[in-house]
Amino acid sequence: MKKILILGAGRSASSLIEYLLKVSATNNYEVTVADTILASAEQKTKKNPHARPILLDITDEAKTHAEIDRSDLVISMLPAFMHPTIAKQCVLLKKHLVTASYVSQEMKDLDEEAKKAGIILMNESGLDPGIDHASAMKIIDDIKSQGGKLTVFKSYTGGLIAPESDDNPWGYKFTWAPRNVILAGQGTAKYLENGKLAFIPYTKLFTRTEKIQVEGLGDFEGYANRDSLSYRSVYGIEDVQTILRGTLRKEGYCEAWNVFVQLGMTDDSYTIPNSEKLSNREFLELFLPSEGEDTQTRLLDYLAHDLNDEIMYKLEWLGLFNDTKLQLKNATPALFLQTLLEDKWKLKEGDIDMIVMQHQFEYELKGETHTLQSSLVVKGDDAIHTAMAKTVGLPVGIITKLILEGKIKLTGVQTPTVKEIYLPLLSELEGLGIRFEEKEN
Amino acid sequence: MKKILILGAGRSASSLIEYLLKVSATNNYEVTVADTILASAEQKTKKNPHARPILLDITDEAKTHAEIDRSDLVISMLPAFMHPTIAKQCVLLKKHLVTASYVSQEMKDLDEEAKKAGIILMNESGLDPGIDHASAMKIIDDIKSQGGKLTVFKSYTGGLIAPESDDNPWGYKFTWAPRNVILAGQGTAKYLENGKLAFIPYTKLFTRTEKIQVEGLGDFEGYANRDSLSYRSVYGIEDVQTILRGTLRKEGYCEAWNVFVQLGMTDDSYTIPNSEKLSNREFLELFLPSEGEDTQTRLLDYLAHDLNDEIMYKLEWLGLFNDTKLQLKNATPALFLQTLLEDKWKLKEGDIDMIVMQHQFEYELKGETHTLQSSLVVKGDDAIHTAMAKTVGLPVGIITKLILEGKIKLTGVQTPTVKEIYLPLLSELEGLGIRFEEKEN
Repeated sequence: MKKILILGAGRSASSLIEYLLKVSATNNYEVTVADTILASAEQKTKKNPHARPILLDITDEAKTHAEIDRSDLVISMLPAFMHPTIAKQCVLLKKHLVTASYVSQEMKDLDEEAKKAGIILMNESGLDPGIDHASAMKIIDDIKSQGGKLTVFKSYTGGLIAPESDDNPWGYKFTWAPRNVILAGQGTAKYLENGKLAFIPYTKLFTRTEKIQVEGLGDFEGYANRDSLSYRSVYGIEDVQTILRGTLRKEGYCEAWNVFVQLGMTDDSYTIPNSEKLSNREFLELFLPSEGEDTQTRLLDYLAHDLNDEIMYKLEWLGLFNDTKLQLKNATPALFLQTLLEDKWKLKEGDIDMIVMQHQFEYELKGETHTLQSSLVVKGDDAIHTAMAKTVGLPVGIITKLILEGKIKLTGVQTPTVKEIYLPLLSELEGLGIRFEEKEN
Repeated sequence: MKKILILGAGRSASSLIEYLLKVSATNNYEVTVADTILASAEQKTKKNPHARPILLDITDEAKTHAEIDRSDLVISMLPAFMHPTIAKQCVLLKKHLVTASYVSQEMKDLDEEAKKAGIILMNESGLDPGIDHASAMKIIDDIKSQGGKLTVFKSYTGGLIAPESDDNPWGYKFTWAPRNVILAGQGTAKYLENGKLAFIPYTKLFTRTEKIQVEGLGDFEGYANRDSLSYRSVYGIEDVQTILRGTLRKEGYCEAWNVFVQLGMTDDSYTIPNSEKLSNREFLELFLPSEGEDTQTRLLDYLAHDLNDEIMYKLEWLGLFNDTKLQLKNATPALFLQTLLEDKWKLKEGDIDMIVMQHQFEYELKGETHTLQSSLVVKGDDAIHTAMAKTVGLPVGIITKLILEGKIKLTGVQTPTVKEIYLPLLSELEGLGIRFEEKEN
């Protein structure tokens, strides 16, 4: 019997736990689900005979140590900053580790020790990072093996609301951590276009979007992520002429979001004095010059070039000009905006989320230029089996199974950019309905 | 004989040293000028019999300790982050300290110990902070003592080029640390207007300027400094309805500078790969969308609403569209821009700098509304006795003398916001030609 320890039974763990319990019958697994709230672990394991829900606070070092020691493999669904602590214990006790988070420098530093211990520290095993790596690398390696030369690689991902549940003018609801949506893009986006470096500051990010079409779903727009350049070495495509990774939103979202950026409403660096006394309208007025008539007119005068009727309608729909009060103490502008949006962009009962990912490739082969588009659309089944939970949890589960079956024999710090991992991963994901559609021109 | 130790004989110390040497004859001072470059200390003391130029590196703790120990008062013209280290030794050895820098939290924490030791830790004794506090507080206290109620306080300061040396389209040259000019305004400007909080994000800062007129010098524009709100408690004017501190530039400067902000050229958070290979034009193109014809057209298409002929002329004058190369390795955008500007905005032989400060007050007195404007204009004498060196160095020197003469008897952490300091300080500054002109309406 193989023993798996899952740390953290949060939202994203539900599909993972179900998958592992399902394969436990044939693979003879014991799945320990550890959470700081026992009821949460119990609820997600549903008295399955292969499951062992336990109460565990990882600040209880002795108990954590004992639980890792009795396992064959640890899955950490904890916040990313906690992973190095867990990874060090896994190295010490010679246990495999799987996470869905980016490889941190601290994690990277454990590579050699992990190899000596004969264990794998498997990271970036979710959706983004995770499925994005696997699906892109499969095509990149295919192109290379045919003797082709990749010239353009663009990749966009969005955690969105499914069309059937899209009933607001923004075409967006919070299907994942709202805070990340509010702060998205702060810093500078760096990418490469036609062999030339390009930088987009935050203040221009949401005005420099690209139109993305996904068959059957209509028009989206993508804004550039902060770091596209490092993917050249990650994917072994140092000679690529254009590389851009971006985030997808429904068409029209970005130009409206840009208003918040221009006003300074996404700033999380200071708290607003007496924020609890502010109405939505007064919150807006903090960022407007004092001259002028009513709030709407002042906003129009101030950001004339960045506004149109459609955007004004979106802002009105949010209640930004209302006198309702959120009564938030010590709020930063970002937190005030987030709270305002959380009320408007919350999922209703029966609402379904949707993950959209699209890779765009251009490559030279035998003197000809080819383009290839590979798109993934995953919709949630319900409020628990969301598209996000499935696309993050299933690859983590599949990779866990592959390691325990000995089909992934790698040791040290790994990500799903290598064939030994991405081929069986993508193959099993397809069987579970997570399948990319390719379109060649 | 009183012994003064000056740490750091940089640019801003020349007028200070001359002032102290001049009063040494009657006051019987010994002025030790310590620098890491002995020649620099020697050059500034010109074999004056009251001067004692020495070589001193403050990382040499034993020697620094000995030098402080043999002095009655220490003046630190070192970078501000070094002051707490010096201050701690001054407390220990019971020596007075004078600096021209803002009171840091570390400095503030020494208040009680300094009082116990019977010494003064005198800070903010230069121009801004320094003369700004003294001159504003004098008027604020006057208004209060008459029974008036201050409603509006705005204060602007600029380190500028004198009109007779102003021969470029920007109306600006570097008369002080260029790096501070490049990074100026990053963050969020916070102020109060008609009783309401107002926030300006960096991206809008240089578009929301106020026109400022200074008699005989024409039109300037002021952009808001980061922190105006804290001056309510600093100046004891908690009930003021409008408070704004700002920086002065010649009219037209800010809308042109805004182009750099919009492009992302003032970003100091990352280095540009292969920056040494970039021409000025290629540097600009890093920040432009790739579509379009020549560089100028692309810029015009991109920032149409933020550009006009006058701004384009200013940019052209800087050589921004040229193919010359600065050959800077590992440059951030901000450093690249700074280096480009340093060449164009450098002082020529004979160029004279100028300090402009203007306070604007509005107050209620006996049922009537009064406005008062108090302006200071100081021009440099030459390349050594610059307006900046005089307005920073002279108040430091005067306050030093006042402490040694026992005319300032305060102990603990102090700034020139109190009568005991600002009255004799302003009075002596007037005699040296640093005089505010008041205009009442």
